[in-house]
Amino acid sequence: MTKATVGIIMGSQSDLRIMKEAAEVLDELQVAYELTIVSAHRTPLRMIQYAEQARAKGLKVIVAGAGGAAHLPGMIASITTLPVIGVPVKSSNSIDGWDSVLSILQMPGGVPVATVALDGAKNAGILAAQILATHDEKLAERLAAYKQSLKTKVEEAASALEAKGWRAIEK
Amino acid sequence: MTKATVGIIMGSQSDLRIMKEAAEVLDELQVAYELTIVSAHRTPLRMIQYAEQARAKGLKVIVAGAGGAAHLPGMIASITTLPVIGVPVKSSNSIDGWDSVLSILQMPGGVPVATVALDGAKNAGILAAQILATHDEKLAERLAAYKQSLKTKVEEAASALEAKGWRAIEK
Amino acid sequence: MTKATVGIIMGSQSDLRIMKEAAEVLDELQVAYELTIVSAHRTPLRMIQYAEQARAKGLKVIVAGAGGAAHLPGMIASITTLPVIGVPVKSSNSIDGWDSVLSILQMPGGVPVATVALDGAKNAGILAAQILATHDEKLAERLAAYKQSLKTKVEEAASALEAKGWRAIEK
Amino acid sequence: MTKATVGIIMGSQSDLRIMKEAAEVLDELQVAYELTIVSAHRTPLRMIQYAEQARAKGLKVIVAGAGGAAHLPGMIASITTLPVIGVPVKSSNSIDGWDSVLSILQMPGGVPVATVALDGAKNAGILAAQILATHDEKLAERLAAYKQSLKTKVEEAASALEAKGWRAIEK
Amino acid sequence: MTKATVGIIMGSQSDLRIMKEAAEVLDELQVAYELTIVSAHRTPLRMIQYAEQARAKGLKVIVAGAGGAAHLPGMIASITTLPVIGVPVKSSNSIDGWDSVLSILQMPGGVPVATVALDGAKNAGILAAQILATHDEKLAERLAAYKQSLKTKVEEAASALEAKGWRAIEK
Amino acid sequence: MTKATVGIIMGSQSDLRIMKEAAEVLDELQVAYELTIVSAHRTPLRMIQYAEQARAKGLKVIVAGAGGAAHLPGMIASITTLPVIGVPVKSSNSIDGWDSVLSILQMPGGVPVATVALDGAKNAGILAAQILATHDEKLAERLAAYKQSLKTKVEEAASALEAKGWRAIEK
Amino acid sequence: MTKATVGIIMGSQSDLRIMKEAAEVLDELQVAYELTIVSAHRTPLRMIQYAEQARAKGLKVIVAGAGGAAHLPGMIASITTLPVIGVPVKSSNSIDGWDSVLSILQMPGGVPVATVALDGAKNAGILAAQILATHDEKLAERLAAYKQSLKTKVEEAASALEAKGWRAIEK
Amino acid sequence: MTKATVGIIMGSQSDLRIMKEAAEVLDELQVAYELTIVSAHRTPLRMIQYAEQARAKGLKVIVAGAGGAAHLPGMIASITTLPVIGVPVKSSNSIDGWDSVLSILQMPGGVPVATVALDGAKNAGILAAQILATHDEKLAERLAAYKQSLKTKVEEAASALEAKGWRAIEK
Repeated sequence: MTKATVGIIMGSQSDLRIMKEAAEVLDELQVAYELTIVSAHRTPLRMIQYAEQARAKGLKVIVAGAGGAAHLPGMIASITTLPVIGVPVKSSNSIDGWDSVLSILQMPGGVPVATVALDGAKNAGILAAQILATHDEKLAERLAAYKQSLKTKVEEAASALEAKGWRAIEK
Repeated sequence: MTKATVGIIMGSQSDLRIMKEAAEVLDELQVAYELTIVSAHRTPLRMIQYAEQARAKGLKVIVAGAGGAAHLPGMIASITTLPVIGVPVKSSNSIDGWDSVLSILQMPGGVPVATVALDGAKNAGILAAQILATHDEKLAERLAAYKQSLKTKVEEAASALEAKGWRAIEK
Repeated sequence: MTKATVGIIMGSQSDLRIMKEAAEVLDELQVAYELTIVSAHRTPLRMIQYAEQARAKGLKVIVAGAGGAAHLPGMIASITTLPVIGVPVKSSNSIDGWDSVLSILQMPGGVPVATVALDGAKNAGILAAQILATHDEKLAERLAAYKQSLKTKVEEAASALEAKGWRAIEK
Repeated sequence: MTKATVGIIMGSQSDLRIMKEAAEVLDELQVAYELTIVSAHRTPLRMIQYAEQARAKGLKVIVAGAGGAAHLPGMIASITTLPVIGVPVKSSNSIDGWDSVLSILQMPGGVPVATVALDGAKNAGILAAQILATHDEKLAERLAAYKQSLKTKVEEAASALEAKGWRAIEK
Repeated sequence: MTKATVGIIMGSQSDLRIMKEAAEVLDELQVAYELTIVSAHRTPLRMIQYAEQARAKGLKVIVAGAGGAAHLPGMIASITTLPVIGVPVKSSNSIDGWDSVLSILQMPGGVPVATVALDGAKNAGILAAQILATHDEKLAERLAAYKQSLKTKVEEAASALEAKGWRAIEK
Repeated sequence: MTKATVGIIMGSQSDLRIMKEAAEVLDELQVAYELTIVSAHRTPLRMIQYAEQARAKGLKVIVAGAGGAAHLPGMIASITTLPVIGVPVKSSNSIDGWDSVLSILQMPGGVPVATVALDGAKNAGILAAQILATHDEKLAERLAAYKQSLKTKVEEAASALEAKGWRAIEK
Repeated sequence: MTKATVGIIMGSQSDLRIMKEAAEVLDELQVAYELTIVSAHRTPLRMIQYAEQARAKGLKVIVAGAGGAAHLPGMIASITTLPVIGVPVKSSNSIDGWDSVLSILQMPGGVPVATVALDGAKNAGILAAQILATHDEKLAERLAAYKQSLKTKVEEAASALEAKGWRAIEK
Repeated sequence: MTKATVGIIMGSQSDLRIMKEAAEVLDELQVAYELTIVSAHRTPLRMIQYAEQARAKGLKVIVAGAGGAAHLPGMIASITTLPVIGVPVKSSNSIDGWDSVLSILQMPGGVPVATVALDGAKNAGILAAQILATHDEKLAERLAAYKQSLKTKVEEAASALEAKGWRAIEK
């Protein structure tokens, strides 16, 4: 098995529902990852340790998802110099996602978190792959193919729609 | 000098402009405090250490202020079981204070932060005193006197206004 | 039976669905509490009386929950010098909880309310216990054990996830 | 001097800057009013007393202005059955006025507050006069004249603009 | 039958679901009302006519409910000098009610609308009665009795809760 | 078949649920349109091409709907000088529609998008017809008849409500 | 002088500061317009009349700007079938522009308003020209030239920046 | 001169005020970059071209800043598979930055933009460096040193504050 270059972490098992999309797209793009639960608020020392050891164990990117007052991505970024991708999760205790978004996005100068859309774990996975692909031609090609497949799907849907008329598509 | 029972910390020296109001009201209420800078994002290990040592060194309440993606109060609360009072600061990088408020207030179940109003450092100081006063009759009396003084000020302003008419007051 | 040191009040019986979590966690932490309904808007004099008598009858902390234009926590705090913990409730007449949060959090200088997250009654209970524990070593130990249990639950979930793989967990 | 039928109150003398506009328009409409400071949070018993005595002393409408977690209008309305007009004030401690608006507007079923626009004290005065005018033909005529004057001012501005061209008006 | 003194109007029949609460509480308070549909955007001339004739036909207060870009209450108020109570309705095309609230509340100086809470039609009815009761002692007594009944219900719920314990109430 | 003068495009087939309402009302108004899928983010070159060819192939108005970070309407408007009507769609990845609205509405000076309400595709269709009707008397008449029909429906509902009473209508 | 085909109206002379940008860009594009003040709330009958006469006097598009609870654009659209372009103005009584935007944008089905960005009067003027240009080849060419000039300005700024380096540009 | 690996672009020269901070920090970290103006709405084809050629000319990361309906970062990301970092700029036409943030952050599945805080250009530069440092040990060391310098600055400020007392610092 290939060594993980992406670490996917989340604040709670309940975030797995969303965060698995990062894993799925990395599988599709053939990027090795590890995935576990690290809670900023319930396991702060585990979080510190995770961030401190990340580079040494071969991780190149960390994808961190959390909801509500979401401190996990920013705190990981406070310790490691690896790029950290933050996924704001619309968790059950969130006010429509605004708290998750703002507490991940609005990091102070010096400590960036690469924030993606609310519940945007799939995009976090793709972004992690794009980062790795800056130095991996094969992966860059797979990303290009992935991009092409998105385009093809839209074109096919458009063709079907134009051919059959919208009333046939919208049942 | 009395040993500090309240620890006032802030994420950046620029927060002192706001956070000093906690110190001032504690001085007024004769509560000993210590005050320093602890940054969640730039000095995470200092933050961990501060929180871990707080109870042992005699602190009973921690007042923590921060702005933007404000992780300091919540992270302190993740480590200590002392009550943590969070002051959302409308810092220069904040979106009208909403990020500061939400990233302090919306803590997950199990790890409370006692949040006060945006830039509400004075109230954080009073709340710290109220917490100490649950077991300090003298302090409770000073708090009652403080409350009385607020009332008196309003009553005096009201009397002056009624006596002179509002046009005289509003120049 | 131990005399109640925490008073839990709420503006409406419909808030009990949320506010019971404060009671449950206080039971778990072996803190004696009383719980009743006090409406700022429908029983204002009962509210005044409740606040005026709170300290004398032995309460040390008041937990007050309300929704919409939530005036209960702030009005209680206007009368007593006990620490008041406010729980913004996302009631049926609330605009996504924003009114509940803002009308509890944004208290003027001089009259703090220790605000917790939207529907965060469990955290209100823990915070009340933390306040009492500033002068109760046994309770502080129970709080430390509670904190430890949160950590253990995350670690166990993380171990299971790592051992079985995320696909086994996310059915 | 005519007995006051409108009571104008505000939470703080600093609100006078806004609330005087209610007084000014009532002067213009020849409606007698009284004006004073009543703070929900610093003088709660004075507030109770004010509300309890309002009807007996001849008031028919109460105009109450406050900012931040603005509890004054709603608490007055909890005690008296007189119509209460609430003026959300964008005070220095308010988050862009949203807290003032929501904590006045979002009253629970059974206890209405007639809320006007943020800093809309002038409209509060007019609304108070409209309420009195439901049973005062002379006042209704003065209100109609006032409405006519607003119309005339717009028509004159429009005529001038059309006659001179907009470049002459916008220097 | 008594002549209507309150006119209840709404922008669409779909608002009746909410606006009927104004009618119900006026029935309970024995205030005669009329109720119909008047759309600012689909029947603007009917709206003008309604507002122009309101005072002459004996109405003393108008309750107007609408959702989304809710122009009905403000436009009615632009024509009549009767007090207009606006009910922001969270209609199907509304963005969580914010558009309804802001387009009713934020009227310019000179043209007030007495705005109640989102979907607060019951409070609109009570407010209309309070306005009438400024000159109707019997109605003022019924309002006082209504207020008393709200208090009694809370007290009874509180007594039951205290007697049985909260676990018995919260099934 | 008449040549299409309105082009309806949407970012994803999932937007058809909303965007079909533009088509339906154009059918009702006898305006010929074409409808297809064009994704700003997945088929950017197709989008460029669509916008570049629009005028030449006879389109006079483009209706573009998209959700979340909705770039389609604005990007189309960056290329063509035809009027572009933007429909913010409350898609599954949108934060209550705010992102869709703001990323369509807030275009920089020089490049307007005519934005309609959230999910307001029907109004987009009517607006497209109104634009065509500036130079098509027959269409202007059909629009006037459509407007009349809206009025009639409200008047009929009002008459029924007044005749039967609201309790009969609201089952 | 050419007969006006665009009518620019605004709720208050204070809106001229913003709305003049619509006039200026129409001058630049050689489109004849008329400009005046029409207040929905202070001159409702003038507003009705303006909308009723607009088509007959030769207007083809109406640009209407207003702030706060901005009813002017929507009410004009309720009467005429001409396309109405709404400009939300961030007036002094507006809550950061949100009220202006929402009360113009969120029109109900059947009555569209083509809304542009907050204070986006220039874009309203361009959009009006684009609508006229659907049947005016010369104007379409002027719009294309205008678009080209925007492009040229960016390209020139980019060239200068690249040639001199950003430090030279950013003094 | 080293070949640029980071491309910094912005929608308007007025964004340079903010975006220069990305350049400055990259200079400090010794990362070669190019910087120019590319407007999504005024130079769409230049934008397409920029994105299409980016990888071939050696860029590895693109930093794109824009305000209001900010389409530049997302559109660049629609074309290239390079990681794109988006900087929401609080431009003069923005509604407090919310439009800038949401139209950059809320990208649909498949096309990520790594979003940083409002006006967070410095963090965008650091993030770009972190991405390059995943495959550049020397740069990783400089980033670690930079992180260390942030820590040192806080520690020094804290030491000074503790030594002199806060009153000496806060003049």
